[in-house]
Amino acid sequence: MANPILHIFKIGGNVIDKDADLNNFLNNFSAFHGPKILVHGGGKIATELAAQMGVQAKMVNGRRITDPEMLKIVTMVYGGLVNKSITAKLQAINTNAIGLSGMDGQIILSKKRNPIPIDYGMVGDIESVNKDFLTSLLNQGLIPVIAPLTSNKEGEILNTNADTIAQALAVALSNLFQVNLIYCFEKNGVLSNPQDDESVINSINSESYQDYKNKGIITDGMIPKLDNAFQALREGVRSVRICSSKNLSKGTIIQLS
Amino acid sequence: MANPILHIFKIGGNVIDKDADLNNFLNNFSAFHGPKILVHGGGKIATELAAQMGVQAKMVNGRRITDPEMLKIVTMVYGGLVNKSITAKLQAINTNAIGLSGMDGQIILSKKRNPIPIDYGMVGDIESVNKDFLTSLLNQGLIPVIAPLTSNKEGEILNTNADTIAQALAVALSNLFQVNLIYCFEKNGVLSNPQDDESVINSINSESYQDYKNKGIITDGMIPKLDNAFQALREGVRSVRICSSKNLSKGTIIQLS
Repeated sequence: MANPILHIFKIGGNVIDKDADLNNFLNNFSAFHGPKILVHGGGKIATELAAQMGVQAKMVNGRRITDPEMLKIVTMVYGGLVNKSITAKLQAINTNAIGLSGMDGQIILSKKRNPIPIDYGMVGDIESVNKDFLTSLLNQGLIPVIAPLTSNKEGEILNTNADTIAQALAVALSNLFQVNLIYCFEKNGVLSNPQDDESVINSINSESYQDYKNKGIITDGMIPKLDNAFQALREGVRSVRICSSKNLSKGTIIQLS
Repeated sequence: MANPILHIFKIGGNVIDKDADLNNFLNNFSAFHGPKILVHGGGKIATELAAQMGVQAKMVNGRRITDPEMLKIVTMVYGGLVNKSITAKLQAINTNAIGLSGMDGQIILSKKRNPIPIDYGMVGDIESVNKDFLTSLLNQGLIPVIAPLTSNKEGEILNTNADTIAQALAVALSNLFQVNLIYCFEKNGVLSNPQDDESVINSINSESYQDYKNKGIITDGMIPKLDNAFQALREGVRSVRICSSKNLSKGTIIQLS
């Protein structure tokens, strides 16, 4: 018998920061049948809270550093405010959500990123995923809502990239489920003309990806996203979709062949 | 066969606010064998954060009001910072903790407190406890760590008293477990002389409680605590202990007879 289908959605700040967009996404997410997981990022709330608290965001070479003060803020905002608000909203629309961070049931164990060559501070790289516990939650009909925080074996909380969490969960669960990984972002999908939001490329496979890159149609920031998507596919994920949070069934679908 | 034993611990701000006290408590808690649940309060961090953010604590008749700004703060501090820090620390000492708030898996459903005669704002009174889901977590060897936040059917997050949560969980689980409810506070137990921290009354039952009250030995703030304890016992809880977070096996044990 084929493994059951699992949808893993990732939403970022562009959805979280606007109440109407978030509510719209949560209604669409709630309507999606079958086992599913939602991984969320942070949004501007952490930056705004830092400003309100008088905490300066530290930057090194244009990259944000998670110092201990900023870690407290993201733990409060991602693990508390955003995670619990989404969970309560989903419960109110009959979706049995459970809000979790990586340390809960040790769903995600991480290690602190090597400070050489760049010390990003309290940032985690994923070491392992507790797929048995996640599967047990899914089998009970629960919908995990996961904040971008993990912890290491020493009990330190670590800021962890939400895209990477979604990908790691998708790969880890792909021998128990047929996993569809769905990245929701501000555009309608991968565009053949960045100026035209209607120019969505409906599907990309390994071959056409090479072609789009050679022709200079897919460039810049989209390349690491797609490289990661193909990496996930090679590691067993069934499909990756890049779409707008407003339309979860459209956008660009990425498969190996 | 007798139901298995379950310990439910409640800790408040006096333990949470001092790192050394919290670590000491978590080591003691971790060493306690068998199924267990930890309910935590908030502590001074929420008040300090409010001050840092320039949010004024609203008071009516000497009571703190949870307005929408304060609700955001307690959601961040209780549901995020405190809950995730405790969970990560417990994981680091081999205790498989899972940090949850009431909305997660709808563990606790509440309703907003009636604004008449006093409008406390976003405060919840418990309506129901999802004992099946809690039991399923306990049966998987997980240790729920519960923040004093719940939500109602409308998806509103509500600030909820941690003592009341501990009591409601104890009562709800008492037909599946022999529940021992343990309130950890700043004193060594119920004292016969409030000036003497060594004057702990080792045990109190319904009869001796009446006697202590008649003689004026138990007075004031301790009476509602003990009334609640006896209420929990009448509703099926096996024992209630009031003790110091530094010594979980001592203090005052309260039983019906």
